[in-house]
Amino acid sequence: MGSRGANGVVDKGVDFANYFCTYGFLYHQKEMLCDRVRMDAYYNAIFQNKHHFQGKAVLDVGTGSGILAIWSAQAGARKVYAVEATKMAEHARELVKANKLQDIIEVIEGSMEDVTLPEKGPIENPAKENGARFDSFLPRYPSHARMWMAPIRSSLADQKMSEYEGAMEDWYSFVDETKANYGVDMGVLTNPFTEEQGKYYLQTSIWNSLHPNQIIGTPVTVKELDCLTTTVNDIRYVCSSSSSSITAENTRLCGFGGWFDVHFRGSNKNPAQLEVELTTAPSIDSVTHWGQQVFLLHPPLRVQSGDDITLHFSMNRAKDNHRLMDVDLGCEIRQSSGKLLPPFQKKFYIE
Amino acid sequence: MGSRGANGVVDKGVDFANYFCTYGFLYHQKEMLCDRVRMDAYYNAIFQNKHHFQGKAVLDVGTGSGILAIWSAQAGARKVYAVEATKMAEHARELVKANKLQDIIEVIEGSMEDVTLPEKGPIENPAKENGARFDSFLPRYPSHARMWMAPIRSSLADQKMSEYEGAMEDWYSFVDETKANYGVDMGVLTNPFTEEQGKYYLQTSIWNSLHPNQIIGTPVTVKELDCLTTTVNDIRYVCSSSSSSITAENTRLCGFGGWFDVHFRGSNKNPAQLEVELTTAPSIDSVTHWGQQVFLLHPPLRVQSGDDITLHFSMNRAKDNHRLMDVDLGCEIRQSSGKLLPPFQKKFYIE
Repeated sequence: MGSRGANGVVDKGVDFANYFCTYGFLYHQKEMLCDRVRMDAYYNAIFQNKHHFQGKAVLDVGTGSGILAIWSAQAGARKVYAVEATKMAEHARELVKANKLQDIIEVIEGSMEDVTLPEKGPIENPAKENGARFDSFLPRYPSHARMWMAPIRSSLADQKMSEYEGAMEDWYSFVDETKANYGVDMGVLTNPFTEEQGKYYLQTSIWNSLHPNQIIGTPVTVKELDCLTTTVNDIRYVCSSSSSSITAENTRLCGFGGWFDVHFRGSNKNPAQLEVELTTAPSIDSVTHWGQQVFLLHPPLRVQSGDDITLHFSMNRAKDNHRLMDVDLGCEIRQSSGKLLPPFQKKFYIE
Repeated sequence: MGSRGANGVVDKGVDFANYFCTYGFLYHQKEMLCDRVRMDAYYNAIFQNKHHFQGKAVLDVGTGSGILAIWSAQAGARKVYAVEATKMAEHARELVKANKLQDIIEVIEGSMEDVTLPEKGPIENPAKENGARFDSFLPRYPSHARMWMAPIRSSLADQKMSEYEGAMEDWYSFVDETKANYGVDMGVLTNPFTEEQGKYYLQTSIWNSLHPNQIIGTPVTVKELDCLTTTVNDIRYVCSSSSSSITAENTRLCGFGGWFDVHFRGSNKNPAQLEVELTTAPSIDSVTHWGQQVFLLHPPLRVQSGDDITLHFSMNRAKDNHRLMDVDLGCEIRQSSGKLLPPFQKKFYIE
């Protein structure tokens, strides 16, 4: 149970946490707390399934403002351990007190790797151990999670290419002028500059709130997790091949949009009374603060309804910075005529 | 000699340097290299004073792209040690080679605290030791530096106050709605949120390119450094009291603008043939990428030509993050009538 994306994990000490991590700011907490889709999903998942909480111990990793810990207590939890690595822990503690739940909720400032939970028993460090050891606790909330990708059209592809081209034009004038005015030949840096700007403009995935009309083919699941049995090793490396069909008439394949959904189903032993879904898919009226991540293709490809795309997706932590993710997208397109387009492979970075 | 502001020092390892420090990007190097005021000042300081370089060893700390190392070599230096903490060191090395100066310039990747300079003799770690020990090297470039502050008028004061007020109005609706919709009282966080948003909108200094007309009184020097004798201890803490006179007719004192200038004068033993000044003061035609730092007062004060301001300025590294600076501004205003306004003191943060 937690309110963070995969990239939001804090583990580089207080200095990093307070100054570089947005989770240390109430402003950002408010942004998440104003996300009605997220709030309603958790609120309903908890209060429509009070039997999951009554008399149970709850562990909330990355509690932030403490909202989920508070709801868990209000739903009848016996004890809530709310762990938070940033200074936000102090605000969570105040909020718990103001809502008169300090006897139930214990806010613990620290990262999960370092804290020792007061509760005795089969509790182990969830960052290192299999979640099944948490069996004195309530089932993991949410119980299931999926990552999705779908082919999209987007004018962002043109915009980013034109920004990239502008940056490169600037560069060439800069090289000329530096040689003429200051006697230094910068030309040798053209290749690394091209690479840097290409990474920035063309290969970095972009936060976007897609309109459902921008989805031009069937979405595919690239990862499915049973959170009740998932271990860290299961999510270290994501790799899948799946097939999507273009559903829009004669259009441009400009890239892929990625999002996730989670489900609150409880466990087999202790199922939910009301199953709740929280999806961050493109939507007109249920927009979340997570939005979607967009991976753009340059140049876009002309596609037709009935074309089939085999998408090879792999995602890894970046070698030199584990807060960043490297993504490889491989694409094979079989046109409805049966003709195969040349397959291609692109590298992306998620910041 | 170096191309960084006081906040640009890199010392948190490669991971930090490459991902959080803009100096690792060619894009940012290009921005500095396109600053004509900065480029011309260094170019003239070096090539109009070749006698400072001929036959000398040069140490360039934070060489970035390596431009100053290259000019030093072109001006006749015997040897240049160019130290750079970020991956930019690799690009600097390429640039040196492309400009056929690899026999003179040695690019060293590492932070000054960690590198060992190959040159034998009285060279010591400049981060720890008095600069006077560098006497086999050329005089420090620049030789002198000053920090300036001046009273200003600026519509930024109104803009930031209105952004702050908007953020607070949002907050109050948020508190009401969270109580009504989700049964949690967030009111206890109103004080820390007010403080956080006040810091962000009202107490954080702002980068700005001021127009000279926005300066409404005589600029004052808050710090003066003879770089040839300065030690780290001299710049750890800046504290001064100085007097400025309002020169504009009936206007608003909206805060203070801060900037710096540096001079290339050489040393007494080895003076410059041409003294060069590089100033980042507000200017119509000599705008630098450094711009000015603006410290805003809320609310602004009505002032008249002839009013005298005594400005108490102090600047310190932030306790919990040495890349940030804390500034205290104290103000006493004596109106031209002789009447003293109530003195006040404000805290600011430089990011």
